[in-house]
Parts: sequence; structure tokens; C-alpha cells
Amino acid sequence: MFQERYFEDYALGEQRQTIGRTITETDIVLHAGQTGDFYPHHMDAEWCKTQDFGQRIAHGTLIFSVAVGMTAGTINPLAFSYGYDRLRFIKPVFIGDTIHVQVTIADKRDHPKRTDHGVVVEKCEVFNQRQELVLVCEHLLLAQRRAL
Amino acid sequence: MFQERYFEDYALGEQRQTIGRTITETDIVLHAGQTGDFYPHHMDAEWCKTQDFGQRIAHGTLIFSVAVGMTAGTINPLAFSYGYDRLRFIKPVFIGDTIHVQVTIADKRDHPKRTDHGVVVEKCEVFNQRQELVLVCEHLLLAQRRAL
Amino acid sequence: MFQERYFEDYALGEQRQTIGRTITETDIVLHAGQTGDFYPHHMDAEWCKTQDFGQRIAHGTLIFSVAVGMTAGTINPLAFSYGYDRLRFIKPVFIGDTIHVQVTIADKRDHPKRTDHGVVVEKCEVFNQRQELVLVCEHLLLAQRRAL
Amino acid sequence: MFQERYFEDYALGEQRQTIGRTITETDIVLHAGQTGDFYPHHMDAEWCKTQDFGQRIAHGTLIFSVAVGMTAGTINPLAFSYGYDRLRFIKPVFIGDTIHVQVTIADKRDHPKRTDHGVVVEKCEVFNQRQELVLVCEHLLLAQRRAL
Amino acid sequence: MFQERYFEDYALGEQRQTIGRTITETDIVLHAGQTGDFYPHHMDAEWCKTQDFGQRIAHGTLIFSVAVGMTAGTINPLAFSYGYDRLRFIKPVFIGDTIHVQVTIADKRDHPKRTDHGVVVEKCEVFNQRQELVLVCEHLLLAQRRAL
Amino acid sequence: MFQERYFEDYALGEQRQTIGRTITETDIVLHAGQTGDFYPHHMDAEWCKTQDFGQRIAHGTLIFSVAVGMTAGTINPLAFSYGYDRLRFIKPVFIGDTIHVQVTIADKRDHPKRTDHGVVVEKCEVFNQRQELVLVCEHLLLAQRRAL
Repeated sequence: MFQERYFEDYALGEQRQTIGRTITETDIVLHAGQTGDFYPHHMDAEWCKTQDFGQRIAHGTLIFSVAVGMTAGTINPLAFSYGYDRLRFIKPVFIGDTIHVQVTIADKRDHPKRTDHGVVVEKCEVFNQRQELVLVCEHLLLAQRRAL
Repeated sequence: MFQERYFEDYALGEQRQTIGRTITETDIVLHAGQTGDFYPHHMDAEWCKTQDFGQRIAHGTLIFSVAVGMTAGTINPLAFSYGYDRLRFIKPVFIGDTIHVQVTIADKRDHPKRTDHGVVVEKCEVFNQRQELVLVCEHLLLAQRRAL
Repeated sequence: MFQERYFEDYALGEQRQTIGRTITETDIVLHAGQTGDFYPHHMDAEWCKTQDFGQRIAHGTLIFSVAVGMTAGTINPLAFSYGYDRLRFIKPVFIGDTIHVQVTIADKRDHPKRTDHGVVVEKCEVFNQRQELVLVCEHLLLAQRRAL
Repeated sequence: MFQERYFEDYALGEQRQTIGRTITETDIVLHAGQTGDFYPHHMDAEWCKTQDFGQRIAHGTLIFSVAVGMTAGTINPLAFSYGYDRLRFIKPVFIGDTIHVQVTIADKRDHPKRTDHGVVVEKCEVFNQRQELVLVCEHLLLAQRRAL
Repeated sequence: MFQERYFEDYALGEQRQTIGRTITETDIVLHAGQTGDFYPHHMDAEWCKTQDFGQRIAHGTLIFSVAVGMTAGTINPLAFSYGYDRLRFIKPVFIGDTIHVQVTIADKRDHPKRTDHGVVVEKCEVFNQRQELVLVCEHLLLAQRRAL
Repeated sequence: MFQERYFEDYALGEQRQTIGRTITETDIVLHAGQTGDFYPHHMDAEWCKTQDFGQRIAHGTLIFSVAVGMTAGTINPLAFSYGYDRLRFIKPVFIGDTIHVQVTIADKRDHPKRTDHGVVVEKCEVFNQRQELVLVCEHLLLAQRRAL
């Protein structure tokens, strides 16, 4: 499960895809409980009927957290996550939707200060079962460079 | 709990602060369970002892999700969240740390396409009990403009 | 979120209403898990079909706890809860029912021993989506009196 | 587990005692998540240090719910719970405290309307590991009378 | 709840039956979260539609753990569990199925080393609401012998 | 994550090892909640002080379920689990212990009825941070044979 990968080992355009996971009512209730966000958009089925989307929707932070978790496979001891850019909630995820994530190495760049590391940008795209893009973000991975 | 606020009602520099919340071992175990991320950084106290940070650290997505949830107070039916920019994990959060969030209206701008809405940028800064900044992000709120 | 209110600041008849929350199968399973009450009334869908109410019902303590939690808004550092009177389970709450709570200041009275505090009685009425009263109780709040 | 008991079968003064259960940080975090009550009294260890009680305290509704669950043993198909009287939070319960419950048949009385049932009053007393009374309430059980 | 039973007190063929419990989507999501097993068999409703069983199935370890928990009634301080033999997953358990457990004293034998204890074999059979056997195992209980 | 492996692809003596996971108080509380087993061995810290082991111990089914989950890596669509043999609880696991699992292909044999499948026996050994064996079992995997 531990697998060393240097900055140089990541190839632009490289792609991997996760298996799927169905987002359940349970996930939403647990996420409300973890975060304290009990907004009616997620928790009040009656109020949701009066809204455009017509039913309860998953928290944006739930889909983001689950999607990130779904991409957590092998552990690279030479890299660590330091943030995300351009996280966008494109479409609502409803109870019963099944999501999967596609990760693409979208960019590789120097780090402004740390010359012994480079920044690997993983584009994460989350799709539902209708292949609609529901969430997108760019994961910033700081990966060690191979010593010269 | 519902309170209407138009784009024009948000003032640059406006600030609010949440109460605090202690991040517990329970939060980490529940977040691993919700996301499927059982990386040893969060779940293996023995392995962590051999690392620089010396102890288990909270998932980045946990602190982000909890922080966002902590800012969820009154509901503005005229606005909705459409994403986050520049999410950065500045410092690790350990079991027993207590965080609070400071939200500042950092920017207001036009939306490229929707002329009846404007973008409100809320800068969210998460601090621990030593007043160290641990996480920062920019919340993008799409708020309806007052009809002319 | 902290807001000081003295005994004198509570007005008889004052009323507030919470937003709604749908009671889910998840809530019941989690409450059984928290309390250890796995009675078939809550956990055995087959047995419930043979009973008058025909389906699983939420634990009384679940609806009470959630309802009390739903009324937890601003924190009054000058008051604290010391109990409840006349808690009654009026009607069963089923999976999928959506409840909200109405709180009315129903009484204000002296405390037998603590002359620097007074007792504020909050009547909590829990309604389902059909506006049927499902639970009622009286919350006893001990609130500091203004110094003379 | 099902055991029929008529109103006449309950004896005044009859007493039973549950085994013990330690109230953990996990219980408090789960209860906050279930109820949405994230008050700093339960969730902010730093703030609690500045208060009289000096540490986080369990929600009143948590101790009440757990205590009620602890008394749920055999199921009497001839009786049902219809409420509680005089629920009082006598002392705070801290993380690590171990509680048990003593149930005493404290009263038996007619029901104002239902002549085929009687009201059995179970006094529930919750003690901590120092044998201090921390919570008390009266459980109202409506039990069927034996047909004449 | 504590009840002393010596090895000699267990009678071959003795039988008890638990009440029922419905296995919910919540149970599966919680079990995935507890164990880290997010296999699509349990978590991906879309993928399951393409499989023989057509829908999500409960983890074998979930049904085993819940079944064992359902048989946990009175505590015998003179015995302890030291393992299980011949655990078999006979039929899948689906969301909404209701299980109960039948325990039969199937064997009593000497322990190879501990002459002051004997082995009691409890055959645990788990049935669904259609009375189909879904899981079976043999629980090995080491029970103290009466002193001579 | 899906990787086809036929019966013939499993080699006797083949071995793999999981990363570690610390068993927390949270895990025990959640497992009690999932299974309904609130025995004082797991839930009553005061009572445990009076026993030989001196502190709360994890449920056997918890360690078994977590260990099985820890071995769930790649999914073999040509095989499925049909049971476990000789599951033994060798040593107690305490709160704060860190376990890992070692899986060894210990046996390969014909299935009495299904000639197109063979039985692969995975010996699972669970160790704590002191390299003490705490649990052992034999996992029975029914794997498809390569067509001749």
C-alpha cells in the first residue's frame, strides 16, 4: 500500500478511475451530524418539495470528502496534499445517486519556495450514474523530486 | 433562521466569528468511516510516532467540512454556494485541538454569465486554540441582486 | 451566538418556531445504537406490520432529543436548563415524517430557593408535516435576575 | 424477551437495577451529531476550562436517553410508555463517568379516561460511580388491567 | 443480568430464540465505515444491478456481528467466548430483510488442557423473514465446571 | 481495483500484510451500537477495573470485522467468500492497541460439489503493536478454476 513516487514519476495526462459508491440518506444524516450543517436543503424532505430541486440534496462537503476518500489508494510517502483549487459544485447529488471519480494528472509545476519538491495537480472529476459531471476540483500534491 | 440578503447587502470587510469546537478522536474515526480514507496518518497511532508530526492528524477534508458546517448559521434563500477557491491545509490539526472559524467578506464581483446575481467571496480562516491558522479557503457565494 | 438574557427579558407568550427536520431510518438506527434500545417497535419491520401502528416508530427519546436540539440556537450564558415537566408522547413519529418545534414562554415563576434566579417555563410543542401535535413538554430554564 | 405483565402485577416499591455504562467522548460527539446541539458546554474543551465545571459535560438529553435505554429489558406487550414527569438534571455527567439506573415502582393510579388501563409510575434514578444521583425522572407506563 | 451457569448447567438440545431485527441501508453504511470494506457488493447500487444478486448485499461480518449481538442477553460470569467454528454465509441478506437467531446447545466436550472448564458449543442459526437460513456458525463457550 | 485471479493463480505460502489501525474507544462504542452488545466487558470501565484484564476490551466481533475489512483490497470477480473456520480470540485487544493483519495462503483444496471452483484457504493472523497474536481465523474463498 506504500509506494514511492517521485515528482518525476507522475506523467501529464495519466488517468485513473475509482469504483462507484451510492450516496445514501445515511451518508447525509451522518454528514449533518459530523459538521453540524442541518440546513433544510439536506434534512427537510417537505421543504425540499417546495424548491426547484424537489428533493433533499447531499452537502457539497460530503460529496467532496467522499470523492477525495474514494481516490485514496496507495500511499506515497514522498508526497503530501497541501490543498485544493477551483472546487466547484456543478450539479446536485441526490439520495440514491452513484458517483465515481476520475483523476487526471493535469499539470506539473515548480513550487515557488521548495526547490526539492514539485507540485502535481490532480484534476478530480466526480460523475454520477448518468455520466453527468457533478463536482470538479484540482488537488495539489507536493511531491519530492529525485535527488540529482 | 431564514434571512434574505441580496448581493448589495454584503459589505466588504464584514466579519463574523464562530464559537469553538474540539476535534476529537471520534471525529477522525467517523470521518474515516464516512470517506473510506483509513490512511495511517489518521488511523495508526504507532506509525504516526515514527513520523515528523508524531501523532495522528485530522483529515484535511474533516477540518474543511467541520469548518464549513460551523459557519452555517442563518439561511439566505437568495444565495447559494457554488464552490471554493484556494483551499489550503496550513498546519496539522491534532486530536484535542479546538478550532474556530473567522469569516470575512473579502471580495464582491460580477458573475461572468448571470447578470442577476453577483459573486460574494467569503474568506474562511480556521484557527486552533493557539490562534495558529490551520486552514484557509475562499467560499464563493452566488447572491441575487436587487431588482432595479 | 452568545446572547445575554435576564429572567426579566423573557416575555410571557413569546414564541419562536424552528425549521423542519425529516426523521429518517438512519436516525432510528443511530438512536438504538446510542441507547441500546433495540425494541422491535423501532427495529423490526416485520413485527411492526402485525401491530396497530403497522410500521416502525421512532423512539420517544429520539424525538425528544432531536426536538430539544432543534431549539438550541443562541446560547444564554445567564441561564441553564434544569429539567423538563409533563413530557408526553402524543402520537407516533414514523420514518419519513418531518417535525418542527414551536416554543412558547408559558410561565415565569420564582425559584423556591434561589432568589437571584427565576424559572422560565418554555412549552415545547413538536408537530409533524400534517400539523399534528406529536410530542409536548415543558422546559425549565433557570435564568438570572437582573441585580437590583 | 416478551413477558406479559398486567397493571395488577406491578408491586409498589418493587425495584430493579441496571448494569453500568461509561459515558464516553464518543457518546457526546454522536449525540451532538444526532440532535444538532453543538453547544460549547459539550463540544469545546477550551471554553469549558473557563467555566465552573471545568470540562465538557454530557447533554442532558444524552444521559436521559441512555438511562431510558439501559432500563429497556423485557418487553411487556400489555403496556406502553406515554411520557415522563419531573425530569431533573441534578449533577453534570463528565466524560469517563459510569452511570447505572435504579428503577422503583413509585406509584400506581387510575387513568382519568381509560378504565381498562392503569398508570404505573416508575421512578428512574441515575447514579454515577461515586453513587451520586445525577438525573431523576418518573416514567409513566400505561398498563392493561386484567379483565374482570 | 448476571446469572451464573456452570458447564453442568447447559443441557444438550436446549434452545432459545431472539427477537427480530431489520437490516437497513444504515447498517451497511455504518459497517463499511467501521471496517473500511467499501466493496461495490455493499456500496454501489448501480453495479449490483449488473450482478446475479441484483441489489446491494450486507457484509458477511455485519450479519455475523449483529447476530452475535442479538444473542447477548444475560451475562454468565463463569464462561467466556473463545471462538467460532464453521461460520458459513448461506444466503445473501438484502436491505430490508429481517433476521432472528436461534441458538441450540449442540455439543458439550472436554477442553484439551483446562480440566476445570468444559467447552459448550452453541449452534447459532440466523434466519430471514422467509425462514430461510442465511448464516450459521458454532460458538465455543468455555464454561467453568462445578468444583467437586 | 478489480483484478481477476483464478484458483490456479493462488500460490500456497503466498503472503501479504496490511497497514496498521489503532482500535479506539470510538470503535468499541460504535460496535456496541451496531450489534447491541453493551456487555460491561466493553462498556463499563469501572466494572472492568475489578476484573482480571483491568480495563475495557474490544468485542471479538469488532476485531474480526475490522481485520477482515483491512484485508479487503483488490476485488477478485472470480471468487467469493463463503465462510470462516477456526476463528479464535487469542488475546484481548484494548483501547489504543494497534493491529495489523497477515494473510497467508494456507491451503488449496477441491470443493466437494462445485468442480468448476476450488477452495482457497487464507489464514488471517491479527497482531497487536507488540507483535502478539490476538486473533486468528481461516478465510474460505471459493475461486473459479480456469476452463480447461
